[in-house]
Amino acid sequence: MAFFEKSIERKTVYSGRLIAVREDTVELDNASRAERIIVEHPGGVAVVAVKDGGSVIMVTQFRYAFAKELLEIPAGKLERGEIPLECAQRELSEETGYSAATWVSLGAMYPSPGYCEETLHLFLATDLQRGEAHPDEDEFLSVSAVPFSELERMILANELPDGKTVCGLLKAKLYLGK
Amino acid sequence: MAFFEKSIERKTVYSGRLIAVREDTVELDNASRAERIIVEHPGGVAVVAVKDGGSVIMVTQFRYAFAKELLEIPAGKLERGEIPLECAQRELSEETGYSAATWVSLGAMYPSPGYCEETLHLFLATDLQRGEAHPDEDEFLSVSAVPFSELERMILANELPDGKTVCGLLKAKLYLGK
Repeated sequence: MAFFEKSIERKTVYSGRLIAVREDTVELDNASRAERIIVEHPGGVAVVAVKDGGSVIMVTQFRYAFAKELLEIPAGKLERGEIPLECAQRELSEETGYSAATWVSLGAMYPSPGYCEETLHLFLATDLQRGEAHPDEDEFLSVSAVPFSELERMILANELPDGKTVCGLLKAKLYLGK
Repeated sequence: MAFFEKSIERKTVYSGRLIAVREDTVELDNASRAERIIVEHPGGVAVVAVKDGGSVIMVTQFRYAFAKELLEIPAGKLERGEIPLECAQRELSEETGYSAATWVSLGAMYPSPGYCEETLHLFLATDLQRGEAHPDEDEFLSVSAVPFSELERMILANELPDGKTVCGLLKAKLYLGK
């Protein structure tokens, strides 16, 4: 049995710098209609950058939505027309100063598929080389290298609530067969 | 070094049935000001329900934001004042018909902490008993039990893009020491 919802009407009710919001009307499989609220978002990337010794490059930044600092993997939004891999390379360099010789896709992640179009492209970056970080003007963050085993402990202790960080780290663990 | 952003002004620019959007002004650590776009969301729960044989109860539903069906762990939104564990028990029963005798918290997940206040509370449910599903009127979904090993294969093959599903399954794997 396959399900489908047909778009009947699309109505943009908010349009801002980062996101837009639509209130769409859809037709369901039983021919009745329903409203679907959709957040439009440009999408982004997140990078699990692992040093030769097994530590992972992490960033700490203040997240206003939760009024606290979070420890996360480096990430950023796609610029218009930007290819995800190039965005990942740009963001890793801007936020942490690191560049990587080896890149592997860890696939796409939908943070909130029930109402948001955002797609995050996850990458594993290895063979790292350290350079100078150059974050955006209004971007305040600190960079650290954390052993993978410590990050696993933090995940189990619920000290890493950021979804892309847990997804990225545990997909990397699965991929690396650790 | 700790970072902080002080709220200077809060302005609601959209308020709908599911979410609201604010354009807030904050003061940064260097005393300059910036705008922060925040999506308000009631939060929700997601449940990794594992049968005695090791299969996981999954739901397939159409996700309008991506115009396709996704295979996900059962999940739902918190009702006003609802306790996360009770919401998880209600949603598992409504969507799949299963109830569980044993519940363990797998912690909180922030799907998009850069701009969205949504918190998802993850749970591991075991000692399952099958009953009758009773989804909402406009909720069309099908229920299946999928072996954990097959779900791991799908995660590696990027066939499970839903963030909470990957987070929940891989946190459960870590917790169970699999």
